[in-house]
This record gives sequence, C-alpha cells and structure tokens, in this order.
Amino acid sequence: MNNYISENKDRFLNELLDMLRIPSVSADPKFKQDVLRTAEFVAERLREAGADNVELCETAGYPIVYGEKIIDANLPTVLVYGHYDVQPADPYELWNSPPFEPVIKDGKIYARGACDDKGQMYMHVKAFEVMMRNNALPCNVKFMIEGEEEVGSANLGTFVKNNKAKLDADVILISDTGMLGNDTPSITTGLRGMSYMEVEVIGPNRDLHSGLYGGAVANPINILCQMIASLHDEHNRITIPGFYDNVTELSQEERAEMARAPFSLDKYKQALDLGDVHGEEGYVTMERTSIRPTLDVNGIWGGYTGEGAKTVIPSKAYAKISMRLVPNQTSEEITEKFTKHFESIAPASVKVVVKPHHGGEPVVTPTDSVAYQAAAKAYEETFGIKPIPVRSGGSIPIVAMFKSELGLDSVLMGFGLDTDAIHSPNENFGVFNYMKGIETIPLFYKYYAEMSR
Amino acid sequence: MNNYISENKDRFLNELLDMLRIPSVSADPKFKQDVLRTAEFVAERLREAGADNVELCETAGYPIVYGEKIIDANLPTVLVYGHYDVQPADPYELWNSPPFEPVIKDGKIYARGACDDKGQMYMHVKAFEVMMRNNALPCNVKFMIEGEEEVGSANLGTFVKNNKAKLDADVILISDTGMLGNDTPSITTGLRGMSYMEVEVIGPNRDLHSGLYGGAVANPINILCQMIASLHDEHNRITIPGFYDNVTELSQEERAEMARAPFSLDKYKQALDLGDVHGEEGYVTMERTSIRPTLDVNGIWGGYTGEGAKTVIPSKAYAKISMRLVPNQTSEEITEKFTKHFESIAPASVKVVVKPHHGGEPVVTPTDSVAYQAAAKAYEETFGIKPIPVRSGGSIPIVAMFKSELGLDSVLMGFGLDTDAIHSPNENFGVFNYMKGIETIPLFYKYYAEMSR
Repeated sequence: MNNYISENKDRFLNELLDMLRIPSVSADPKFKQDVLRTAEFVAERLREAGADNVELCETAGYPIVYGEKIIDANLPTVLVYGHYDVQPADPYELWNSPPFEPVIKDGKIYARGACDDKGQMYMHVKAFEVMMRNNALPCNVKFMIEGEEEVGSANLGTFVKNNKAKLDADVILISDTGMLGNDTPSITTGLRGMSYMEVEVIGPNRDLHSGLYGGAVANPINILCQMIASLHDEHNRITIPGFYDNVTELSQEERAEMARAPFSLDKYKQALDLGDVHGEEGYVTMERTSIRPTLDVNGIWGGYTGEGAKTVIPSKAYAKISMRLVPNQTSEEITEKFTKHFESIAPASVKVVVKPHHGGEPVVTPTDSVAYQAAAKAYEETFGIKPIPVRSGGSIPIVAMFKSELGLDSVLMGFGLDTDAIHSPNENFGVFNYMKGIETIPLFYKYYAEMSR
Repeated sequence: MNNYISENKDRFLNELLDMLRIPSVSADPKFKQDVLRTAEFVAERLREAGADNVELCETAGYPIVYGEKIIDANLPTVLVYGHYDVQPADPYELWNSPPFEPVIKDGKIYARGACDDKGQMYMHVKAFEVMMRNNALPCNVKFMIEGEEEVGSANLGTFVKNNKAKLDADVILISDTGMLGNDTPSITTGLRGMSYMEVEVIGPNRDLHSGLYGGAVANPINILCQMIASLHDEHNRITIPGFYDNVTELSQEERAEMARAPFSLDKYKQALDLGDVHGEEGYVTMERTSIRPTLDVNGIWGGYTGEGAKTVIPSKAYAKISMRLVPNQTSEEITEKFTKHFESIAPASVKVVVKPHHGGEPVVTPTDSVAYQAAAKAYEETFGIKPIPVRSGGSIPIVAMFKSELGLDSVLMGFGLDTDAIHSPNENFGVFNYMKGIETIPLFYKYYAEMSR
C-alpha cells in the first residue's frame, strides 16, 4: 500500500488543495453556495474512491455526505465522521496568503480548513481509496461527513436519530484533533463540552451624547464590562453559582499521569509571545486546557468603532461568550446557570437579553477498548513510538451525542499540531501529517479487524 | 427686521437643508471632498450676506472659513465661532430617514448636523444677513467657522495663535449648546473638558482556538473588561489615582441654586426608557452631567462580531474611552493620570497600548459680563422669560483656548434641546428654534453695542 501512497502523493495533495479553494464557511450565509459545492466535491471523491450508495442527505441546514462499503455483514463496521465546513477566515488582513488560495510552503499547506477539518477528513477518503485499490479493506466502512460542525452541528442529532439502522456500526473513527508533536504522537481520549451564549446589554433607547448624558445614564459598554469582569474571581475561578457543582475532580494519580506528557512552559509562552500564562489558581497549563472548565469572551462590540473619535453613549452593547465544560457538567445545566446568573447581576439601569447559540457535552473515551488499542498499534507502527493518551481542551460535541444515540465509542485519531493555527489566520497542516494520516489509517482498519475477531 | 425674517423664512430653511445634504463627517477620510464642499458653501453664503474678506484659511487639516464686516474701528467687535463638520451618522439603520437627506416633519428638521452645529451656526449667517439688509448691524463682526470640531479642533489652536490680530475682538459668540426647553430658555455658563483615549490590549501573538487554549491564556477581551470595570468603584467614583485632586467642589449654595432649574427625574427616565439612572453616589442627575467628571467607554471591539458563533480567543481587544472634566482638572493632567494608571493595572499576561485622541479644558463663563447680560436681555425679549444660567455637561474645548490665547470670554447662545438627539440617529432641530435664533441674535448685537458704550 505504501508504494501506492507515494506514487499518488501529488494527486492526494492537489485534490485537497482543490477542496480548500472552496470557502465553505458555515457561519456566514453569504458562503452558502460554496458550502453546498464542497458537499458535492466530497461526495464525488467518495464515489471515485469506490464507495457505494453515496448521497447528500438533506437536513434543515447543510447536507450530510453519506457513503459506504459493505464487504461482509459479519465483519465489523467503522463509521467515519468528519466535517467539510470551516471557520470564518477573518481577520483576512492577518493572513500571509489568501485563506482560500492554498499554498504549500516549508512543507505545510496554508489555507482555512487545511487541518480543521478538510485536511484531516480527506485523509480518510484517501486512506479508503488506498485500501480499495489494493484490495486491503479488512472490514465494512461508512462515511458521515457533515457541513455544520463549526456552527454547532445543529441538525446532526436529528439525522442520527432518524437513521440509526443506516448508521449501525461498531466504532466511530474521527480525525478532528491533534497530537503533542510529530515526534510524540498522541491520541485524544477526552474532550471538553461547550455552552456558547450571546448577550445584549440595553441602556437608553437611543445613542446619547456622552457630554450631555455622561455620568447620569448607565453606559451599556461599561456595564457589560463590569458584568463580564464579575464572572471571574481573583483566583480566576468562575463565579456563576453552582458552575463547578458537577465537575469531576481528578485524583492525584491521574494528574501525575497527565504530567508525564512532555510540556515546556517557556516554549509555550515563547510560541505565543506571552509575558505570562493566565488561568485558574491551583492548576497547571495542561490541566487548565483539558480537565478544567473555562469562560471566554469570543467577541465584543458596541458604540463607535470607526476611525477617529465619537463621543457617544451607545444604546446597546453585545458579547459572545463561550464556556468549555468538563465531565460531568452538561451544556443544558451550564446554559441555564449562566443565563440565570447573568440576568441576575444586571443593574436596574439596563435590560439584558441572553441567547444561547449552541452547546455540546464533554466526553472521556476509554483507552482499554479494542478500537483504542488498534489505533495505538497503528500509530506505533508508522511513528515508531507508542502514542500517549491525552485529554484535549477542544470540543467535538457530537462524540457525546454518538455515544448516547448510537451507543458507540469514538476513536479520535488526530494528526494535527498546536502550531496548525486552526481557527486563526494562517491555518496550516503539515504535508508530513497529511501523508502520515493516510498511511496510519489503513493500519487501524487492519488491526481493528484482526483484534475484533 | 422681523418682517424681513418672516418673508424669507422658507429661503432660510431651504439654504440650511442644502448644507445638510453635504455629508461633512470630519472623522472619516472618505468624506473629505464633502467636508471641503461644505466649507465652500459657508464661505459663499457669507459673501452673499455681505461679509468682506471671506476666505478659506488653510490648516494642516480642514480649512477655517473666515469673513468679517468692520463698520467702525471704534465700535466693539463680535467674533462668531461655529463648525461646519458633523459627527459620523452610523448606525445608519436606526435613522427613520437618511441622515443626509434632510426632511422637515412635525416642525423639526431631521438630518445629521441639523442642530450640531450646521443649524445653529447658520442662524448666525442669516442673522448677519438680516442686520445687513436692514442696515441694523450695530457693531463689527468676524466669523470663524471651522471643520474639525467633531474630531477635537486639532488645528484651530495654531490658527488662533498665528492670527491674533485678525481675530482681535471684544467677545466670542457661539451657538453650539442647548436650552432647558422652549418655555424655559437658558444660557450655558459652564462646559466640561475632555480627555479622549484609545486603548489596545494585546494577548497572544495570534488568534487562538478557545478550546485548545481557553483557560490557560489571558483573553484580551476578558482582561480589557476587567480593566475597564476597575475604573469605577462601587460608589461609581472613578478609581484613577488623583483623578479628583483638582475638582472644584461646589458650595451648598451653588448646588441649591442649580437645583432651582426645572427637572423631572421621571420624565428623564421615561424619555430614555430607563429602569433607573446610574451615576456617582452623592450627586443628583443634573449635577452628574455638569459639575462632576465622568468616564465613559464610547466604543469597544474585539474577536468575532459577525453572524453565528466562532470559538476564538482574539489576539487583541480595543476600546475608545473618554473622560469629561470639570474645573480645575486639565486635559493634560487627566490624560497622563489615565495612561499611567491603565498601564499599571495591566496583568503580566498582556501588553497594553494607550493612545490619546484629543482633549479640551473645562470652563465656567462669567454671568456678570456685559456680553452675558446682553444675551440674557435678548432671550428675555424673544421668549418673554428671563433665561436661566446653567452649566452643561458637554465640551467645547476651544472656549478655554480662546480665553487663554485671545483673552476673550465666550457667550454660549444655544437654541438646541435635549431631544435634538445630537450625535445620535435621527438628530433634529426645531424650525421654531432655528427661527428663534435668527430672531434673537440681532437683539444680542443691539444690546451688546448699547451696553458697551
């Protein structure tokens, strides 16, 4: 199979670049046609690779690309999940090359979605092609590639509920996470959940002159800042009543185990050009980004933001606020607690509107399963090192949903790196990582089929 | 003269509407040609009205329109100041009619600049015409109409310094303020100063994924909110060290005198649709907006502000913050204290950049001067009521500059109302007020000339 991979390397790369040229930003309606074109693109490539019954399954939002190869009903079935939509690319001016005109530089593919998740999703399409062309597919496979992951997978749950037979499988395989490094492969065994809120603080019924009214009328921006500031205490703990009630505290043993993963605080600060890190007292950086919940403002706006100076007290101010959750918090619980608290701390001088965007549940995946063991064996063979199990700070809400709806565990075979700048300008994905994924995935199928016997 | 005024009322209105159609937004470079056209417009109308030596005086920024009528060197000279530039009109979607397509509705002229300051400035051009056509100009007059008031009059000071002989006069006359009401005329005798700052909080060197980094890296938006929130204490007093050091506290007598001005808190709250007012403990609303200094955020932005949800920790967050000053604070002093303090409260996890936009000094104008008495007499004659002297919360920084550079006091004959929504969507100016100004101003000249003998 490796010969086939190296012979077709250029084509594998060019096909990915073609997909990256389509700006499939699901958050912004103006890209609707591009998102749909990307779905068609994925479906076409699956057909070419040899998948059967390939179709675009309609949803209330963007379609889900489905395809399958059933070689023997008695063999286990792998359900591959990925997404073809991408994050918005702004601020565009910070990109060294246009986000939707991919370039390969210093061994890296630069484009929005290069890693998250077009690059990693497409590894599976190509790995499938490799197995098909070499008559090496050892079990059944199904593909479910959605187009709304970056906006909360609003319609995936309904699709899964309504298609349980179609999606019947033994394990779910996902590449939408990262590794510690190319010399220290790792497999993600935990993910944080999320509650994403949008808040609006309403002051006077119109914009006011800050000279004539300043000092007597609540300024919605000042009030919003005070309300946001009050959400953390001096220990950087979140002050929402009951926020930590259901948080599972790790044992000293578990924390010691985590601490074995290689990490350099200096390198971390250097890479981000930080004077210091900043987080919850009593936890180290690796813990703050994995086993602890967080609250971050993802966007804020209000008043005059143009050039020059305008002396205005705006009528309204807005913020987008997201919380990352850990076991056993639930998105519904935290969304409710946030809403109740945020409304309660608003002074009488303003009105407040709190609107939940989307949420997802935290998960911890088992490391003793056949699927995890098969994945670990595959990494060890291609990287020459046993992969380290790590809990990630990111969220793939649907992993918890798959468990509850389909009763299936997921294996998170990620090949990205922290330096891939996903969700940032200059997102990139190593050609090494892309090819390594295409090489490693077939081995997972091989060992998974063997060990399942 | 009143016959002439009523005969020409329609033309006086139409000429103002013509000027209001030119979007002279000085804060936004894309309106540069329009600002320049407005200067030409004012100069042409001054010539038509009978002014001599009308010219556009070049500055490093927008030109200053100058014109004069010297009838007798032995008579006193009135120097009229006004500005032809306007505030930005955004948010456009909140206007009931386009900001630069003036309409007269229910006796009010709706347009950006209708009151501030095109409408009020143009009253003086028309009042001058009225006096000229009726051979009733009782003293000398000079006009100085600038185009950068809304962006801090950056170049006016230099112009004044370099043209002291040309600007030689006995008093400065300005209509850029308001009255308590059409049935309770008032003259502004005090103005607040201002320091306007722009701040930038810099966190990581690139936007980050809030899942992978959230909880471990300082989020510039959260930090900016904390820093802004900390600028007020629980009594709504400003926490910048030394901020109140030079504030002149009014005597109980002075405060009692102020309290005699008619004011209804219920009407105030109702007009702005406020659940409650909000301000410094120990002072009432009228005091909070006039004799007390303030700190307001006029604009804030950072992160993702588009549709939908983006899980990002932005690299930077920004805010525009202005402080209104009272005697004897100085703009330079407060700008320095703010900068020092804001930099000092930044945690090690972020960098901070503080940039002053522009400032101006607070003033209190004398009520025992001939000029003030003449103005009061003029109001009393046209309104039938003695005007109340009031201190306004607004700033006309150049009033203090005129005093220090030219040694001249200003009389602030304002005819606007609180309901004119200056600096807001749907700015308007009453036709009654516009015509009342044109009627009252010549009486000021009459009494000023008489009382100066």
